[in-house]
Amino acid sequence: MSVMERLNRMRLAMEAQGLDALVVSLPENVLLLSGFWPMIGASVLVFPLHGAPVCILPECYEGDAKQLFETVQTLRYPYGILEAPECLSAVKSLLQEASSGLSWKRIGYEGSFHTTAPSWNCAEFLLLPVNTPAFLQSVFPDSELIDASRLLQSERALKTSFEADKLRRASEISSFGLRAFEELVEVGISGVELAAAVEHAVMVQGSGFDDAVRVRAFAQVATGAKESASGYRPNEISTTRRLEDGEIALLELGVVADGYWADRTRVRVAGRPTPEQRKIFDIVREAQEAAISAIRPGVTGADVDEAARKVIRNAGYESLFPHVTGHGLGFRYHESIYLLSPSSEEVLEEGALVTVEPGIYSESVGGFRIEDDVLVTKTGSEILGVYPKTLC
Amino acid sequence: MSVMERLNRMRLAMEAQGLDALVVSLPENVLLLSGFWPMIGASVLVFPLHGAPVCILPECYEGDAKQLFETVQTLRYPYGILEAPECLSAVKSLLQEASSGLSWKRIGYEGSFHTTAPSWNCAEFLLLPVNTPAFLQSVFPDSELIDASRLLQSERALKTSFEADKLRRASEISSFGLRAFEELVEVGISGVELAAAVEHAVMVQGSGFDDAVRVRAFAQVATGAKESASGYRPNEISTTRRLEDGEIALLELGVVADGYWADRTRVRVAGRPTPEQRKIFDIVREAQEAAISAIRPGVTGADVDEAARKVIRNAGYESLFPHVTGHGLGFRYHESIYLLSPSSEEVLEEGALVTVEPGIYSESVGGFRIEDDVLVTKTGSEILGVYPKTLC
Repeated sequence: MSVMERLNRMRLAMEAQGLDALVVSLPENVLLLSGFWPMIGASVLVFPLHGAPVCILPECYEGDAKQLFETVQTLRYPYGILEAPECLSAVKSLLQEASSGLSWKRIGYEGSFHTTAPSWNCAEFLLLPVNTPAFLQSVFPDSELIDASRLLQSERALKTSFEADKLRRASEISSFGLRAFEELVEVGISGVELAAAVEHAVMVQGSGFDDAVRVRAFAQVATGAKESASGYRPNEISTTRRLEDGEIALLELGVVADGYWADRTRVRVAGRPTPEQRKIFDIVREAQEAAISAIRPGVTGADVDEAARKVIRNAGYESLFPHVTGHGLGFRYHESIYLLSPSSEEVLEEGALVTVEPGIYSESVGGFRIEDDVLVTKTGSEILGVYPKTLC
Repeated sequence: MSVMERLNRMRLAMEAQGLDALVVSLPENVLLLSGFWPMIGASVLVFPLHGAPVCILPECYEGDAKQLFETVQTLRYPYGILEAPECLSAVKSLLQEASSGLSWKRIGYEGSFHTTAPSWNCAEFLLLPVNTPAFLQSVFPDSELIDASRLLQSERALKTSFEADKLRRASEISSFGLRAFEELVEVGISGVELAAAVEHAVMVQGSGFDDAVRVRAFAQVATGAKESASGYRPNEISTTRRLEDGEIALLELGVVADGYWADRTRVRVAGRPTPEQRKIFDIVREAQEAAISAIRPGVTGADVDEAARKVIRNAGYESLFPHVTGHGLGFRYHESIYLLSPSSEEVLEEGALVTVEPGIYSESVGGFRIEDDVLVTKTGSEILGVYPKTLC
C-alpha cells in the first residue's frame, strides 16, 4: 500500500512538472522507485507517467531482483562474463526497447546530483557519467531532457510508512555498533581498533536482522581531546593513537541496510570522567533532547536548531558549537533537503527524517556530540533505534 | 623523482593532444596528479601544461594536504561549518582565481568516467555531476572543453616507481586479510562473519603499516558449492549461511591504502578437501601460475589469458571458466585499461599492473579462484604482496 503511495506521489509530482518519464540510474533513485538497490554494473530505471516501470539490469541480478516492486518489469543484459556485450550499448538498446512505440516529450534525468550514496559494494562505484545527457539524447532524439534532480530530492524528503520501516531497521542495526563502542572503549584501545570493531559488529549482527541482507557500517573514532576537538569535520579519520586514562572517544557512525541509512554519534570516556567532561556531556545531551522535543510538523529547521543552540548558549558554550544541529537522511547518509540550521526556513512535515546532533568542541576538554535519527510523526516525533546516551 | 616522471609524462600527453590544462575532481585523478586523495567535499585539481598545479580544497583538509606533491599550490574554502559558503560557488570563484590572467584555449575534463573508486569514506560519495561541462564553461567561457577521460586512463595504465611502491604496500596489506581468512575458515562460521573479520584485520593491521593512513577492505565470501559456483559474479554477497564440514569458502577481497588498490582472491576448505576439490584447486593454481609466467613486456592480454585458459582447457574444464583471466588495477579496483581476455590485443609494458585470477566454477564442487596482483617489470613480472595459495 505504501509502495503505491510512493509511486502515486511521484506521478503527481511528474504531472505537475509536465514530465512524461523519468530515467534514473543512481542506486539510491533506482531503490526509491523500484524497491531494488543495484550494487554494480549499470542498472537503469525507466519510470513512465503512465504504464509499468521498466528496470534494465545485469542478468546476474536475477536473484536480487525479486526485491523489485510487483509492477516493475525487467529487461536484462549479460554482464561480467566473456560473452557480455559492451555495457552502454546493451543499456542503449534495452532503453530503446523499453520506450518503443511511446513518444515522451519531456524526460527527467539526474542532471545535478553531486553527492550520492555508494552502492553496498564500497570498493567500486558506478558513476553517472557527465555525458549522460548526450547518451540519453541519442536514445530519445525527439524528447526534451529535463534535470529532475530537485524533483527526486523533494520526493525523497518525506518517507512513506514502508520506507520508515526500513529506516527504523537501519537505526536499530546501527545500535549494535553503538553497543560495541560502549563495551570496547577502554584505556589502550586505538581509534582504528574501535572503528573496525564497530563496523564488524554492525555487519555481523545486522546481516539477517529483520531480514536485512546487505548491511555495512562506516565508523570514524577520534580519541583524546585534540583529535575529538575537530571531530565534527567530515575529513577526520580514525588513527592508531591509543586511548589514555580519562580521555574521551567520539564515534561517528554511518550505517546502511539494504539502501536505507542511519547516522549516529556517541561519546564515551575511558575510565572516570572529570567534572568538566561530565558537565559538557550533560549540556550536549540536554541540547539534543531539547531539539528532539521541538520536532513536530510545522516547525522550521531554524526552530529545531535554536532549541539546541539555546541550551548551549545559555551554558556559555555557543562559540564551541560551530556546525548545524542536523540534516535530512534516508536514501543517503546526508539528504539535501532539511537542514536544521539557524537560517533554515524549511518546514518539517510528517514523514521527514532528520538527524539531531548538537556538539561542543573544546581544544582542552575535547569534542562531545550525541546524534540520533528522528522521524517526524503526525503529532510529534519518534527516535529511531533508541539507544542509551551515557558517558561512562 | 618518479613524481616528476608522472607529471612530465602527463604534460607530454597533454601537449600531444593540444590541451592547455586539465581540470579534474574525481578523487582518483586528484591523487594521480597531486599526491592528495580527497575524501569528502569538492576538491578540484587544476593541472596546467605550464606552471604550477593548483588544488582547490575544503579548508578542513589543511592537515591532510601535506601529502600534496611539493609543486602543488592550494586554494581553500570553508566547509562543514556554519559560515561555509555554498560549495560550488566557492569552487567557482577559486577556479577563476587559479586561472586568472591565463588564457587556456583547450581544457580537458573527466567527461566519460562511468565507474570510479570511492573515496575512503565509503558512506558517501562525491559525484562528478552531469552538469560539469556547463559549470566549467561558466568558469572558462572562452575555452573549448575536451573530454580527457581516455587520456587520464591511458596515463594511469603504466605506473611510476613511486606508484608501484604504494601499490606494493596495498597488496602487502591485503595479505593481512588473506591470513585472517586462512586462519578463520572452519566449520560453523558464516560468510558474513568471515568477510567482516577479513575487513577488520585489514583495517587494524594495515593502518600504520609502512605509514599507511587510510586503509579499508571490502570482502565478499561465498560458502559452499552452490554459493561459490556463482562467486565470479560481482553482485554475489556474503550471507549468514554457515560453513559445513568439507565445504569451500571463496574470498574476493578489495583493499585500498591511501588511494592505491589491491584485488585478491583465495579459496579454502573447512576440514578435509575431497580429491575432486584438490584436483580443481590444483588446476586453477597451475593456470594462475602459467599466466603469471607468461607476463612480460611485449605480450598481449590474449597471450596471458591463453596461458591460463590452456591449462584449464587441457584439464577438460574450459566451459567452467566463464570470465576473463585478469584486468588492470591501481587507482581503482578495476582500471579500464588492460583486459586479460581471449580477444585482448593490448600489449603489456613495463609498469603495467594486472590481476591474474583464473577460476573454475562447478555447480557440484563449487567455485575456485586464485587471484594476485602482478606488476610488469623490465624483463618479466613481480607478484605484489606474495601470499601462499593453499586449500587447507
